[in-house]
Amino acid sequence: MTGRRMLVVGAHSADFVWRAAGAVAAHTAAGGEALVLALSYGERGESGELWKDPNQTIENVKRIRHAEAEQAAAAVGAKFESFDLGDYPLRVGDEQVERLASLLRTFAPQVVLTHPDRDPFNPDHPAAHAAVALARQLSAGAGVASGFATAPPSEFLAFEPHQPELCGFVPTVFVDITAVMPAKREAMAAMSAQGYLREYYDQRADHRGNHARRVSGNAAIRQAEAFQRLIPNVVGAL
Amino acid sequence: MTGRRMLVVGAHSADFVWRAAGAVAAHTAAGGEALVLALSYGERGESGELWKDPNQTIENVKRIRHAEAEQAAAAVGAKFESFDLGDYPLRVGDEQVERLASLLRTFAPQVVLTHPDRDPFNPDHPAAHAAVALARQLSAGAGVASGFATAPPSEFLAFEPHQPELCGFVPTVFVDITAVMPAKREAMAAMSAQGYLREYYDQRADHRGNHARRVSGNAAIRQAEAFQRLIPNVVGAL
Amino acid sequence: MTGRRMLVVGAHSADFVWRAAGAVAAHTAAGGEALVLALSYGERGESGELWKDPNQTIENVKRIRHAEAEQAAAAVGAKFESFDLGDYPLRVGDEQVERLASLLRTFAPQVVLTHPDRDPFNPDHPAAHAAVALARQLSAGAGVASGFATAPPSEFLAFEPHQPELCGFVPTVFVDITAVMPAKREAMAAMSAQGYLREYYDQRADHRGNHARRVSGNAAIRQAEAFQRLIPNVVGAL
Amino acid sequence: MTGRRMLVVGAHSADFVWRAAGAVAAHTAAGGEALVLALSYGERGESGELWKDPNQTIENVKRIRHAEAEQAAAAVGAKFESFDLGDYPLRVGDEQVERLASLLRTFAPQVVLTHPDRDPFNPDHPAAHAAVALARQLSAGAGVASGFATAPPSEFLAFEPHQPELCGFVPTVFVDITAVMPAKREAMAAMSAQGYLREYYDQRADHRGNHARRVSGNAAIRQAEAFQRLIPNVVGAL
Amino acid sequence: MTGRRMLVVGAHSADFVWRAAGAVAAHTAAGGEALVLALSYGERGESGELWKDPNQTIENVKRIRHAEAEQAAAAVGAKFESFDLGDYPLRVGDEQVERLASLLRTFAPQVVLTHPDRDPFNPDHPAAHAAVALARQLSAGAGVASGFATAPPSEFLAFEPHQPELCGFVPTVFVDITAVMPAKREAMAAMSAQGYLREYYDQRADHRGNHARRVSGNAAIRQAEAFQRLIPNVVGAL
Amino acid sequence: MTGRRMLVVGAHSADFVWRAAGAVAAHTAAGGEALVLALSYGERGESGELWKDPNQTIENVKRIRHAEAEQAAAAVGAKFESFDLGDYPLRVGDEQVERLASLLRTFAPQVVLTHPDRDPFNPDHPAAHAAVALARQLSAGAGVASGFATAPPSEFLAFEPHQPELCGFVPTVFVDITAVMPAKREAMAAMSAQGYLREYYDQRADHRGNHARRVSGNAAIRQAEAFQRLIPNVVGAL
Repeated sequence: MTGRRMLVVGAHSADFVWRAAGAVAAHTAAGGEALVLALSYGERGESGELWKDPNQTIENVKRIRHAEAEQAAAAVGAKFESFDLGDYPLRVGDEQVERLASLLRTFAPQVVLTHPDRDPFNPDHPAAHAAVALARQLSAGAGVASGFATAPPSEFLAFEPHQPELCGFVPTVFVDITAVMPAKREAMAAMSAQGYLREYYDQRADHRGNHARRVSGNAAIRQAEAFQRLIPNVVGAL
Repeated sequence: MTGRRMLVVGAHSADFVWRAAGAVAAHTAAGGEALVLALSYGERGESGELWKDPNQTIENVKRIRHAEAEQAAAAVGAKFESFDLGDYPLRVGDEQVERLASLLRTFAPQVVLTHPDRDPFNPDHPAAHAAVALARQLSAGAGVASGFATAPPSEFLAFEPHQPELCGFVPTVFVDITAVMPAKREAMAAMSAQGYLREYYDQRADHRGNHARRVSGNAAIRQAEAFQRLIPNVVGAL
Repeated sequence: MTGRRMLVVGAHSADFVWRAAGAVAAHTAAGGEALVLALSYGERGESGELWKDPNQTIENVKRIRHAEAEQAAAAVGAKFESFDLGDYPLRVGDEQVERLASLLRTFAPQVVLTHPDRDPFNPDHPAAHAAVALARQLSAGAGVASGFATAPPSEFLAFEPHQPELCGFVPTVFVDITAVMPAKREAMAAMSAQGYLREYYDQRADHRGNHARRVSGNAAIRQAEAFQRLIPNVVGAL
Repeated sequence: MTGRRMLVVGAHSADFVWRAAGAVAAHTAAGGEALVLALSYGERGESGELWKDPNQTIENVKRIRHAEAEQAAAAVGAKFESFDLGDYPLRVGDEQVERLASLLRTFAPQVVLTHPDRDPFNPDHPAAHAAVALARQLSAGAGVASGFATAPPSEFLAFEPHQPELCGFVPTVFVDITAVMPAKREAMAAMSAQGYLREYYDQRADHRGNHARRVSGNAAIRQAEAFQRLIPNVVGAL
Repeated sequence: MTGRRMLVVGAHSADFVWRAAGAVAAHTAAGGEALVLALSYGERGESGELWKDPNQTIENVKRIRHAEAEQAAAAVGAKFESFDLGDYPLRVGDEQVERLASLLRTFAPQVVLTHPDRDPFNPDHPAAHAAVALARQLSAGAGVASGFATAPPSEFLAFEPHQPELCGFVPTVFVDITAVMPAKREAMAAMSAQGYLREYYDQRADHRGNHARRVSGNAAIRQAEAFQRLIPNVVGAL
Repeated sequence: MTGRRMLVVGAHSADFVWRAAGAVAAHTAAGGEALVLALSYGERGESGELWKDPNQTIENVKRIRHAEAEQAAAAVGAKFESFDLGDYPLRVGDEQVERLASLLRTFAPQVVLTHPDRDPFNPDHPAAHAAVALARQLSAGAGVASGFATAPPSEFLAFEPHQPELCGFVPTVFVDITAVMPAKREAMAAMSAQGYLREYYDQRADHRGNHARRVSGNAAIRQAEAFQRLIPNVVGAL
């Protein structure tokens, strides 16, 4: 994995923790580099706990959310950045798509993870998906010689949403995160504002571990994360 | 790949050549072992050229088809077997499914390739798929402790059918067969009775190479084969 | 249409009347030949009216159903045959599939109509579909030279089921039956045992006429029937 | 619910416990009647724990499995029956389908629950689904007057499979089982041979409770089960 | 139903009449409250009859359409409002989405009905769907504590489009409107500009009644309307 | 075909050549009229060859692309126009949609061809599809009398994308282009900047010819193009 770069884009600063922190940790543990980008801080939709403080300010909420995400990212060996575009609704304009495309050209990741394209429970998730999909295409070019700088195409996967079946999510790859589960737990622990999700995703990792064990026959797997490849990957042999 | 076993099951003795000979060759070139199983010889539906000889007999057609398939398999480093169940229509009874399950327990492949589950142009292909899917499940058990001997579950993929979109085939993995294309060509050359397919699948390998190049950005790929994973695979990192 | 042959296969003797009598009439009105094949008489599942007679016998029900279907077929210019395989459940064995394939080789239709492959309300309809699809493939061969006599492949369409959306039916072609609607009405009138369906399918023809008008902008269309092509058709120009 | 009858059909004697025991308990707690039918005892595929005893016999395994299922059914207020057709593979012949149709006519349930029609991990589940779907249609008739005794059509739902997305399962209704969760736990406790599934489905009930809470905004829901309606239901008002 | 609030949102002022007036009437007849919101008056796309008057003005068309919709709504016991956003094309800007979200917070409906998300025959229908889906999410929050006022999530259903199969519409619930059919007829009669649709939807209610009868076995149902649930509903028992 | 008008809309000036030039040629050869509209010149994404000249300018690239497309269109008997909206990304604003709708009203084509609605490899293709679909609806009206000038609805088809399965493309009609293949080759030859695609689409025409031969049994077909109807067509007989 040395020299392999992974980019994880979430609509909100905490999204990557629940659904992909294990894959990030496995990637960095194997020598890869990982960057987490949050399009917003989820300061309106997902920070209700913080707003219980009557003196709370939007800037303070963002500051706290930034610190938490940075700490969670560090726990799995990744860097964290935010575009701070606002949430509920998240709206990613043309300029921001270009900014994201530019980041893709610069960072040139081999793997890109983001939300699925559909989520009946959160409008920001599909908005994030659309922005990433478009920026990824713009940075990669049309597959023929183009009149602008391009980055190589990357593997493109969706991480698991909260209610998978209702988002049209069908797993196509399970990542064994048994060895890095402590790191994922540490990342989840950094998310104080959404603390109750810790138990949910801790159990979910066990369930996906059960599925991965069933699929592979590998009894050593205890925890896993599920992903759906959005375009085929290319291999040298099966 | 050393120690890794691949089983390719076709409805007819020539099926594996056009759609999966490259993946077989890549597998064996990397040190893996491969077994090709034909459920029938395609002696009725695909051997019209041979039947032009007015003195032709069914036994002779099968003998020729066996020899050709054996030669093609050898060209890509694989062994060849046939259940000789008859074609057009191929009917795989309960006993034959159990025989196939038994072979799966014995050979214990890590990878199984067969037809997709739908094909509006050939009734034998879905029949083969159904038999393999069932036998694979019977040999693997239910994922809980069972009262009979089981083999570990295997990766399960469909190879490309002749009219992919109409069979519901969507590629999820491209295998780069650039290095082994000469072996695939040799395997195709062994199939004298369906000679005109050689050019078709030679060009098709180029087209899938173009697609794989586009997907990966790897300009060194010239030929590829397309496969669809039927169940998720499990990996240590993305 | 002169010289063009259409085969309509229904699970029960009345099926063709409600869903395809208009297309049959348009076909024969244009000089084509049409054959209606009923796999059963629907003597158990759809003839409850007749069974109200306490002295009713199975043979008599079949005789009445045969006469009605023959009359309905005649009204739209078609011949009627039945395999008389029994209904509820209809079971089409290997031998009967071969008999159907044989009929396809002999009659050599350019167009074949039958039920869609799914119907949560009638188990005989999917059974009929499966038998026709298989027989059609067996009679057509694999598209390569084969060792047995074949008929040319035919256009293959599903006619409209009673609850279309729940059968996965999506119209791909509307047939304008305005000019032959009187013939369809006459065919429907012949079906005394299921008389109440007459009004339903009379109105349905109006509704599909409304849809066809909307799709084509042709204000002269009053009635239409909906069909779903199951394989592509080939044309000389769009 | 008084006078309302529910039939739950599983391929194996333990299936109903994990996926539907809560809905059964809610049904009987509200005054309904429930019957659990197991097509087999899962004596080969799911009873590996019992087979560790070197003196174990098939009859003894079935006896134990019967007792466990009866106890589990009792815990949620239901009766238990088995057709004892054998598992791995479960094969439901024409005669057994008719026996099931006969049971449907006699018991005349308003609600029928069974497996989804697809499961890449267990061939017995789709076999059970197909048998129930067919028997249900045969017992209900074609919706027109028929020549045999029929039962009224029933609501028809699939319960949740072990890997939902890979079985094409999409929840359309969540049943709040908060009040009856102790009964479900008691039912699960009766299944000693598959004890490790208890924790899995205990957590799963929490997760579906989380989903149901999210969907309804009803904060009092702690546990739920997910079901997919296979045909529409009819209501007096939304 | 007392205290239960239903919101019906149509792209044009007449949409609710044809597809949902029966469900509205059943809802209010049972003691519920209903509000119909039209995003536009359909003054360009659906008012051609009115434009035949050479002295017609846009304001007058809107006035007539408003009066008709108000009268139709009254006939089924509902109130009527319009956002008057213009049609063909309907464009719902960010501000209007927020206005709709605000209405959802204030009215706090338990049930929301609107168009399906796809309609190849009318671009305004998907635009309305998208606006309602987004506003509904924004008003409900993300299911975790959020930093703004939210309304409880509502049941969310699509009403039947004009060509259901081509809009991807699959009914999941039939509402029995037999008792309130006179009220629906009265509502339809108020729509003078699209008078010819009256007969169409009168017959359609009979057809859906036939389907609902078939699904439920309830012979008392004469008319019904079809709806598709877009997210699961939560029940106490099946 | 005399008097029949076809409109082909591509995101970039070369798109029509590879995927639809044969159908255009067959159309004009039969006496029809054809207009090709390019929304952009593909001057950024698909003209890399031209940009290798260090003195190249954007205006010169467009000039060259225009001349090539005009020559290619002429080779198949069509006229060529461009909206010159810019590519990578192509963005079609409200005004441009109205301009396109206006062109549809004026040219009043009976057949409209464009890209499918999905393409994971090129963001401009779905943007073009959406603009054409919307403009076509706006120009056709809602199927009821409307308050503005409308054109009759047209047949609407998608041409084949570069990686069909990954774009959700399923052929529903093959056009036999055997007789006009020389004209398509001439059109392809005019596209100097993407010369390498000539061989690809030359072979692809052979493959689709093979498919069309298989589907129709017409051995005279050598080359074909594949299209997917997006709405049903209306015929007088099957």
